Amino acid sequence: MTAGVPPTVQWTGDAGGAVRMIDQTLLPGEMVMLDCTDVECVAQAIERLSVRGAPAIGCAAALGMALAAHRSDATDARAMLADLQAARERLAATRPTAVNLFWALGEMDRVIAEHADEDPDALRAGLLARAEDIVEDDLQRCMAIGRNALELIPPGANILTHCNAGALATAGYGTALGVIRAAHEAGRDVHVWVDETRPLLQGARLTAWELVTEGIPATLICDNMAGRVMSQGRVDCVVVGSDRIAANGDVANKIGTYTVAVLAAHHGVPFYVAAPVSTIDYDLASGDLIPIEERAPEEVAMLGHRACAPVCPDVAIHNPAFDVTPADLVAAIITEKGVARAPYTASLAAVRD
Amino acid sequence: MTAGVPPTVQWTGDAGGAVRMIDQTLLPGEMVMLDCTDVECVAQAIERLSVRGAPAIGCAAALGMALAAHRSDATDARAMLADLQAARERLAATRPTAVNLFWALGEMDRVIAEHADEDPDALRAGLLARAEDIVEDDLQRCMAIGRNALELIPPGANILTHCNAGALATAGYGTALGVIRAAHEAGRDVHVWVDETRPLLQGARLTAWELVTEGIPATLICDNMAGRVMSQGRVDCVVVGSDRIAANGDVANKIGTYTVAVLAAHHGVPFYVAAPVSTIDYDLASGDLIPIEERAPEEVAMLGHRACAPVCPDVAIHNPAFDVTPADLVAAIITEKGVARAPYTASLAAVRD
Repeated sequence: MTAGVPPTVQWTGDAGGAVRMIDQTLLPGEMVMLDCTDVECVAQAIERLSVRGAPAIGCAAALGMALAAHRSDATDARAMLADLQAARERLAATRPTAVNLFWALGEMDRVIAEHADEDPDALRAGLLARAEDIVEDDLQRCMAIGRNALELIPPGANILTHCNAGALATAGYGTALGVIRAAHEAGRDVHVWVDETRPLLQGARLTAWELVTEGIPATLICDNMAGRVMSQGRVDCVVVGSDRIAANGDVANKIGTYTVAVLAAHHGVPFYVAAPVSTIDYDLASGDLIPIEERAPEEVAMLGHRACAPVCPDVAIHNPAFDVTPADLVAAIITEKGVARAPYTASLAAVRD
Repeated sequence: MTAGVPPTVQWTGDAGGAVRMIDQTLLPGEMVMLDCTDVECVAQAIERLSVRGAPAIGCAAALGMALAAHRSDATDARAMLADLQAARERLAATRPTAVNLFWALGEMDRVIAEHADEDPDALRAGLLARAEDIVEDDLQRCMAIGRNALELIPPGANILTHCNAGALATAGYGTALGVIRAAHEAGRDVHVWVDETRPLLQGARLTAWELVTEGIPATLICDNMAGRVMSQGRVDCVVVGSDRIAANGDVANKIGTYTVAVLAAHHGVPFYVAAPVSTIDYDLASGDLIPIEERAPEEVAMLGHRACAPVCPDVAIHNPAFDVTPADLVAAIITEKGVARAPYTASLAAVRD
């Protein structure tokens, strides 16, 4: 991502081998790197959102499997499989919605199967090489998404985005923010409306920070202001990322995305989703089958990750982390293989790897 | 309002005469009464939202005018008019959107005109009597709104509300929450979805607190979750208050209300507005003429009234306090004189005092 800003998640030889990531719970106040030297640390980092965003979670999980192999005491590959199986189960149990997590673990399964009869170091090397490929590949795919989106973003566009689908949500560059970066780099003079994205304020904390760092004009609003700015004709398109896309084009993304999509439809504003093909779950027929994570009520009683609870302490709280936007509200899904449009069952099948 | 909870705003003979109000910026953590012994204190209380909600602002402004008369050193009514004019200008400059403020000041103008040639004490007594009438009258009107709404609220209804149009926003009982209280008292077994209402969290702090205090089942959500719960069929109707209603039925209310109205229309959920006739601005033809207050960007960088700023410090912030919902998204406007439906120009004229 930006010069001087470290990668979102990477392998490091330091400390005898570790998964290094930006602790995003501390941004934008502090830039702190977290070095995980065991899988439990990686799993907890995913759960508490130190690393978040579907592609970045996939990268962290792949590196987590490489870490498990690296840290295993097993002296033959067969004996290492038990350690790897335990690591896989722990990582798979972290968050249910983002399909990239399961996609990345599936990629590591393939490497394990290939090297199961070789010596442990070959398995270790194979897992690390594939994990680092996934990370590098994700960056390249994000940049391709940005290039492919240029046909959709007119000069001077006011683009509304929700949550953070930026460099911090990926190996770098971002999906939705990749689209915005590419338009900015192409001289399109875009301006971004940034939904703050309650409850954890990924928009206010992360997206606003990325855009300010890049010098891309941006204005922060509370989520409930999106309707007003659209009604005033001040939004030309919406671009968001996704945590899982069903085969029919239904899109799971951060809670509040569906509300933005309904508003966009009401105002005739095109609603675009930017995501790599690894976010498409071809095994799921429709979005109502996507598991939606319910997170702790305390998140709603806080601002960001800071513990301040001004809400009525005795009230029940509902805190779904994601929602599902039906395909008929989606104007296009921008992938690294091209721009898919309705009917999505056919167009998404056409971009499959 | 609730037994044991003091009135939102009232006159007190203590301290030689004062306007006493709940300092709502400290709720729900602390119940602190604020006694204002001069008009500047009342004006600042309105500006920083110690007292808020269109009807309550009207009550506070009326009592503020009585306070100005009470505190004036003038020895004849004519000399007092300059003090009253200064008080009126200060109060009118506090907040632009709620029409009840200007309505209440207009009521006090009438009293001043009636007593302008009498002795100062008659003017003082007249202003205080009319102000206390406005407060008592507001409570009665809220209770009538609640009774009139019963025809609209089915048993077991799940009602979504935004911001606080409760006892705390009025002299007591509330407008939107008055509808909910009346349904609850009538044994309708209602459940309330409470939008937290960013940026100042009037839903999470005030509405949730009122409902919990009353024992009315309620679930708090972030504003951006309203779309999801509607898409799941878990909302039967929306009830909100209003800060100003144009003659054609366009409704200004807390920022985010318009988004809820668009969502309700998309899901076929009736969207109701509860407000006294004093909220209707018969002089305004349509909602695009309603002035919308822009408040300080710091509010978006805070949670409630607490100073914690986890947002990116260098980003631009847009903070409109209200939005306008066009009449065609409003299923009914519930007043103390009856339920008005489209076409509103005729139905609102019919309920005029």
